[in-house]
Amino acid sequence: MSRFLRVIPVAEAITSLLAIAPDPGVEMVGLEEAPFRILGSDITAPDDMPGFARSIVDGYAVTASDTAGAGEALPSMLLSTGRVEMGSSDPGEIGPGSCRYVPTGGMVPKGADAVVMIEYTEEMGDQVLVNRPAASGENIVAPDEDFTRGEVILQAGRRILPQDAGVLAAAGILSLPVRQVPRIAVIATGDELIPPTADPLPGQVRDVNSIVCETFIRQCGCIPVSCGIIRDNPADLTSALQEAVQRADAVFISGGSSKDERDASAQVIAALGKVLVHGIAISPGKPTIIGDVAGRPVIGLPGHPSSAFIVLLAVAAPLLAAMSGRQMPLRSIPATLTAGIPSARGREDYVRVRLYDGEAHPLFSKSGLLHTLVQSDGYVIVPASSEGYEQGAAVEVILW
Amino acid sequence: MSRFLRVIPVAEAITSLLAIAPDPGVEMVGLEEAPFRILGSDITAPDDMPGFARSIVDGYAVTASDTAGAGEALPSMLLSTGRVEMGSSDPGEIGPGSCRYVPTGGMVPKGADAVVMIEYTEEMGDQVLVNRPAASGENIVAPDEDFTRGEVILQAGRRILPQDAGVLAAAGILSLPVRQVPRIAVIATGDELIPPTADPLPGQVRDVNSIVCETFIRQCGCIPVSCGIIRDNPADLTSALQEAVQRADAVFISGGSSKDERDASAQVIAALGKVLVHGIAISPGKPTIIGDVAGRPVIGLPGHPSSAFIVLLAVAAPLLAAMSGRQMPLRSIPATLTAGIPSARGREDYVRVRLYDGEAHPLFSKSGLLHTLVQSDGYVIVPASSEGYEQGAAVEVILW
Repeated sequence: MSRFLRVIPVAEAITSLLAIAPDPGVEMVGLEEAPFRILGSDITAPDDMPGFARSIVDGYAVTASDTAGAGEALPSMLLSTGRVEMGSSDPGEIGPGSCRYVPTGGMVPKGADAVVMIEYTEEMGDQVLVNRPAASGENIVAPDEDFTRGEVILQAGRRILPQDAGVLAAAGILSLPVRQVPRIAVIATGDELIPPTADPLPGQVRDVNSIVCETFIRQCGCIPVSCGIIRDNPADLTSALQEAVQRADAVFISGGSSKDERDASAQVIAALGKVLVHGIAISPGKPTIIGDVAGRPVIGLPGHPSSAFIVLLAVAAPLLAAMSGRQMPLRSIPATLTAGIPSARGREDYVRVRLYDGEAHPLFSKSGLLHTLVQSDGYVIVPASSEGYEQGAAVEVILW
Repeated sequence: MSRFLRVIPVAEAITSLLAIAPDPGVEMVGLEEAPFRILGSDITAPDDMPGFARSIVDGYAVTASDTAGAGEALPSMLLSTGRVEMGSSDPGEIGPGSCRYVPTGGMVPKGADAVVMIEYTEEMGDQVLVNRPAASGENIVAPDEDFTRGEVILQAGRRILPQDAGVLAAAGILSLPVRQVPRIAVIATGDELIPPTADPLPGQVRDVNSIVCETFIRQCGCIPVSCGIIRDNPADLTSALQEAVQRADAVFISGGSSKDERDASAQVIAALGKVLVHGIAISPGKPTIIGDVAGRPVIGLPGHPSSAFIVLLAVAAPLLAAMSGRQMPLRSIPATLTAGIPSARGREDYVRVRLYDGEAHPLFSKSGLLHTLVQSDGYVIVPASSEGYEQGAAVEVILW
């Protein structure tokens, strides 16, 4: 098998992944569990809202025609018939020439068609002087003014934010359809790997990619399924992958760092399914594999953590967004490069940078080192069409 | 009591809150629970990393001086002494004139000071031809090259991202100090309120503010403590607030919508502690109360959900950010207003807008209505120094 069957552009790799992305489907959850989930279908108002005529001010409910021509000099004088209590279902009724106090949010009594703010009234014994005319409907919310029964409140695909949860509560929607959360299996391979809990002997390193993948999966709103560290032999890898595609909707295998180990991953994917991509025009991250095993997308990530992480950002994130229905918002800021970034046409370069005072310092290091991951603030993408950036170039830094 | 003791600017309200923000302190958590938490102190490398000399390529470990002058025409010929296995703690030793195969990530054998990429070599029986000179140190990571023992890996205050979790795993840091997650109590008051699970009679409305506050608190990385719906009388409100300050680090009371109810909240806060702010120059949200009860910040939110939500964004979010150590990143985009937004100098206006094709449509509605909350994409702030924006003005829309 050739080292790279065919190196393809990043966009093409993403397209091949999206073409096989499974739809995890929809499940019903209670309102309490709904926040931050993705709505699975449109939600309509089960009833008119607020459902009754409501005052939006503290004031007196009146018959608007009783206040025609009222002014400071010649107020209308109305008979006070008491007050509506908050939450009361019986606000009573007023007739011509009378009025009733309503607090903000209270139900407007029958017979009233306007509420005069208390600021424009004066109490005198059992009389109320109104010194401003009210228009019919003034300061009243109609029973269906917020939402009309059957109207769409929230549309499918929306991520349920605090205010959305509030409107769902207002409508009494206690159970609702949301997209299922995709489950992503994570397999680490490498004979040199030991769990983070173990003390490495010389030649051994602690498994970094599993926790990076699992945390990234959580960041993307998906559920990681940890499959542990698998030794680099076809038998172990085959049974691990077979189990992974049964337990999850997609699989990330962080491969060994050497050519032999990468080839082992590709052979196992090919034996159980199909290798779709073997090599992407991205740096770092070229030796990435994309496969399809039992209808599950499988991404073979490079073994170097910093390379694997870039492939997660560039290639895996769009897959997780498509499966979860949730776009990860990217934040970026403009900056000036303090050093040039050489690149090769035809390859997308992801270069980590550190920011100081609006200047972006590219961080280069030997492959396999971790420190640039935690010393950087984000990264700059050199597109495939470019041969790099010169010192002083204006770039957009995508923040971690 | 006057309706508003003194209406103060938004910035001053935030300052008064930050002055009394309690520090919830630091707790130890396991590495698995650490992602997305805020680091409580600097983390240093317990050992040199990677801890052994490591090859960064697939190739032959050599003594660099053995390859001096090597070229395609006159390669150096070295005795192959086998291969280093991945993860092996004994890479063996090479002497002058010999070499040993090392996979990427493998340990460099004793006696070797460079690795020649396999591309520049050719195997001939037990001999290896090297057709390029190697410099001492080439393609080798030194034992302390990634991190040196005692060096700061991650700084206090950092939110632990996927790559950070990976570096912590690499360093074998299984337990680490993170900031405690602030607990924020939520009390809803209002005699008209019923739980979302109940069917409202006319005059009643389902409690919206509790779930909005609780979801917002979660969005800010804090833990909501639900205290339920409290009837609007001083005795019930007093005992609810006394319990809340014992259970949480801060308290949000979403007040009734009428003046009487707001005054009740202020009186109870004053009786148990101190009212610091009673009225903020913000629209909507003017009747906001800030108090201090038993060293806990208490925010009395307006009763209207849309007003309460704006106060959460403008005033409560900075408090939660200070307490949690976690800034909520705001995303904004520039847009052109399709209609003017009148405002009053001295007041900050938060106007919800809907976006279409780079145009922002201001959504105005009667107070107390919910639909603009879910029909908007974000909001525009009219600063206190402005009398509003004209149609066609370029504004920045802060997205939900």
